[in-house]
Amino acid sequence: MGLRDVGCFVMWVTEQYLGETRWSLAVKKLLFEGRSAFQKIEIYDTACYGKVLVLDGVFQTSVHDEHSYHELITHPAMALAPSIDKVLIVGGGDGGTAREVLRYEGVEQADLVEIDELVINACKKHMPEIGAGAWTDPRLRLHFADAAKMVGQTDAGTYDLIVIDCSDPVGPAEGLFSPTFFADCKRALKPGGLCVMQSGAPSMMPAVFYRTVEALASVFGEARPVFGEVPLYASGQWSWTIAGARVCPDETHHERSAPFADTLRVYCPELHAAAFVAPVAGARRLKECSRLQQPG
Amino acid sequence: MGLRDVGCFVMWVTEQYLGETRWSLAVKKLLFEGRSAFQKIEIYDTACYGKVLVLDGVFQTSVHDEHSYHELITHPAMALAPSIDKVLIVGGGDGGTAREVLRYEGVEQADLVEIDELVINACKKHMPEIGAGAWTDPRLRLHFADAAKMVGQTDAGTYDLIVIDCSDPVGPAEGLFSPTFFADCKRALKPGGLCVMQSGAPSMMPAVFYRTVEALASVFGEARPVFGEVPLYASGQWSWTIAGARVCPDETHHERSAPFADTLRVYCPELHAAAFVAPVAGARRLKECSRLQQPG
Repeated sequence: MGLRDVGCFVMWVTEQYLGETRWSLAVKKLLFEGRSAFQKIEIYDTACYGKVLVLDGVFQTSVHDEHSYHELITHPAMALAPSIDKVLIVGGGDGGTAREVLRYEGVEQADLVEIDELVINACKKHMPEIGAGAWTDPRLRLHFADAAKMVGQTDAGTYDLIVIDCSDPVGPAEGLFSPTFFADCKRALKPGGLCVMQSGAPSMMPAVFYRTVEALASVFGEARPVFGEVPLYASGQWSWTIAGARVCPDETHHERSAPFADTLRVYCPELHAAAFVAPVAGARRLKECSRLQQPG
Repeated sequence: MGLRDVGCFVMWVTEQYLGETRWSLAVKKLLFEGRSAFQKIEIYDTACYGKVLVLDGVFQTSVHDEHSYHELITHPAMALAPSIDKVLIVGGGDGGTAREVLRYEGVEQADLVEIDELVINACKKHMPEIGAGAWTDPRLRLHFADAAKMVGQTDAGTYDLIVIDCSDPVGPAEGLFSPTFFADCKRALKPGGLCVMQSGAPSMMPAVFYRTVEALASVFGEARPVFGEVPLYASGQWSWTIAGARVCPDETHHERSAPFADTLRVYCPELHAAAFVAPVAGARRLKECSRLQQPG
């Protein structure tokens, strides 16, 4: 993980997956390197993706393609939630999800709980464009804490939407993929509230993907994945799963995003509908996961 | 291109793109290595994608994810073409596109023109599952020839659909991305006939993608890209563009694929509609390409 070798005049940063694939980016400059109590943090300026955040050797986000990830974790769920007054963001230390959530005038308060203060400080300093506008928005409240503990202590019925923008289920984020954490999130939501979580690469990490969808469905009642591209990630396709007592992709509140629709790069009502469509073999397997679909 | 290095107990095969990215697969075994008059041909058994065909150092197809590529180059166009009696496949030496085209009972004849006989022979021997059924189908006619020459000499109005399943516009396939070749294809089509062409990775090769769409639109009249995932390719997202005098994604003949719908892994009518939806910034740029949209 985080292998580097020096090739034709450039340094490379490499993400290795299961010892089976390596995805390497040519590096123009190392911008930041640090180690917190939780993980190794690196930020590189790369030739292909611009600035890239790397945590424990895994590519997290890049200034070139972060829009796809941050728009798709945010807007489909914001269009479906019955209300959006109070939003909790779990993780999301680069600020991109907070930026998208705070585009909505209807959001009165966004709490962001990030376990690793060094991630936020490094991103604020070296990738300020990702969280632009969010860090200074008076509606944003930062909490440097373990989200599992914080959500467990949150009053029932506090949030309209919880957005779990965490790293993969290895390392600091492991506990965020557990039924216990999901049950705490469910309790912290208002009735009818939704939870959305990054759920991995369906093609490259099918075990992570299907297990996450199934666990969310079994705790919340229903879970519907959204699919989209994140070229920075090996295999390129990613998923975010929306969970709740009832998740109906076509019962939308697109009027909420209409005032800033012109500023989006990926999401629009047409893409909302398309992003819920799985390749047919994937759709068959999702149907097998219990409680994913309304009966009938 | 085609770099190999020996790491932890395994050999790796690497695709390098523009000196900016490297995408490497751990190799269990080299199954075939040869050089034709046109290119270097390698077939590896890899840990993550199973058997992979590599031409001049570029990953072409794998047994694990070839369905996405071959279903999406074939079925959206087969659903939109006014008729499908006679189909020409340009390239497609692995046999996957021919296999998908020949699923349709309505296809009376499929001509496959491949410049490199060694590709077909190597794929038949080492990746027989990809072309399974196609190679022995009496409706398939193989032509080992330069497609640009062959199509130039084809009678006007011969084909219902032309499927250009070629490699990238560097090397043997370069001439297949030219307006001259497109004009020959247009002439070889019956009135109302369609042409579909692989058009590169929209995110990673935007120049190839937009230039191809624009060139197809300017020769044929209209061009509409289909988007899908091919995890084997760096960046993971790929496109195939359907061109013709009129391309209406929602005027479909899904009854044609209904008899074998259960055997498909990716394509279904719902995915057909979703696959034409571009991320909104891409859609804006596509609208700028002249004649891509009907006026109004």
